[in-house]
Amino acid sequence: MKKLRIAIDMDDVMANTSKKLLQLHQTLFGSNWQPEDFKGLGFQELIKVEEYQVVRDKIFDVGFFADLEVLPNAVEVISYLHEHHEVFIVSAAMEFPNSLSEKQTWLGIHFPFIHWKNIVFCGDKSIITADVLIDDHEKNLVTFQGIPLLFDAIHNQTLGGYQRVHTWLEVKAVIDDLAHES
Amino acid sequence: MKKLRIAIDMDDVMANTSKKLLQLHQTLFGSNWQPEDFKGLGFQELIKVEEYQVVRDKIFDVGFFADLEVLPNAVEVISYLHEHHEVFIVSAAMEFPNSLSEKQTWLGIHFPFIHWKNIVFCGDKSIITADVLIDDHEKNLVTFQGIPLLFDAIHNQTLGGYQRVHTWLEVKAVIDDLAHES
Repeated sequence: MKKLRIAIDMDDVMANTSKKLLQLHQTLFGSNWQPEDFKGLGFQELIKVEEYQVVRDKIFDVGFFADLEVLPNAVEVISYLHEHHEVFIVSAAMEFPNSLSEKQTWLGIHFPFIHWKNIVFCGDKSIITADVLIDDHEKNLVTFQGIPLLFDAIHNQTLGGYQRVHTWLEVKAVIDDLAHES
Repeated sequence: MKKLRIAIDMDDVMANTSKKLLQLHQTLFGSNWQPEDFKGLGFQELIKVEEYQVVRDKIFDVGFFADLEVLPNAVEVISYLHEHHEVFIVSAAMEFPNSLSEKQTWLGIHFPFIHWKNIVFCGDKSIITADVLIDDHEKNLVTFQGIPLLFDAIHNQTLGGYQRVHTWLEVKAVIDDLAHES
């Protein structure tokens, strides 16, 4: 089995950031959208641009990142990948100055097995080199020189051209295949 | 002229971290070493390991990174490189949890032209891909796949095997050469 270097994004890959944004949208605009409502739709078919701007501004608030839920099976699978491969957490945290210490603390609570050497807070992810990048944003995947995996999220439903992974159990299966192919 | 992607370390490359450490050593142990005293010497010929451990623990204190001096000509030359190339600041800040916001603020004060997209706080720098890496530590240069430049510092005087740059004006000349050669 080949040992792979795997870079993993945080928001909407490890942490359920969208859930918190939908809750904020509900509070601010009285909506009641659930993640499954976005299936196959463009994000802006349900969330108006001007409303999203208002919600997105809240990401800059102190505390936004502190209490995000962990996505299902993320802990077990990332722990498994960490045992068999080389895992780096790569978050574009620089956009949100308050997020740095909150993200550090969040990782320490939920993923204490990740060493500080394996955490990267950056902006433009084209500076990252690894075998695999698991991310929910095209802007991060498009410049990546390794194997890009698109983590399914409510805002990327209509994006094509990437291998899409829907759950952490699916990520595990894909990585196991890659490691045995290599 | 080729546009290069240049990754630049912070401590002892942009910021005069050693100066502050020597000042702390002076306060704690009554020494009076100046940077030029280390010329050609192993660091531990002047600073005892057990004393260095005491000084180094201070790096974890709140405020350590906030007031570091900028190294001579760093602002002008990095500004010049930023105009002609693609500059990323890459600091192994994760080791010092308090340093993240202090380093962000420090960059904003002294290098306001550096966009958040071009700042990377990491641990193990082998995850970084660029054409040139300017760093004072062998551990960061040894895994780098591009052109490594060793920035002269009091702790790396006996390190061989890398092109050594002593000042920011020398960095400018080396990068100009690389850009015209390429």
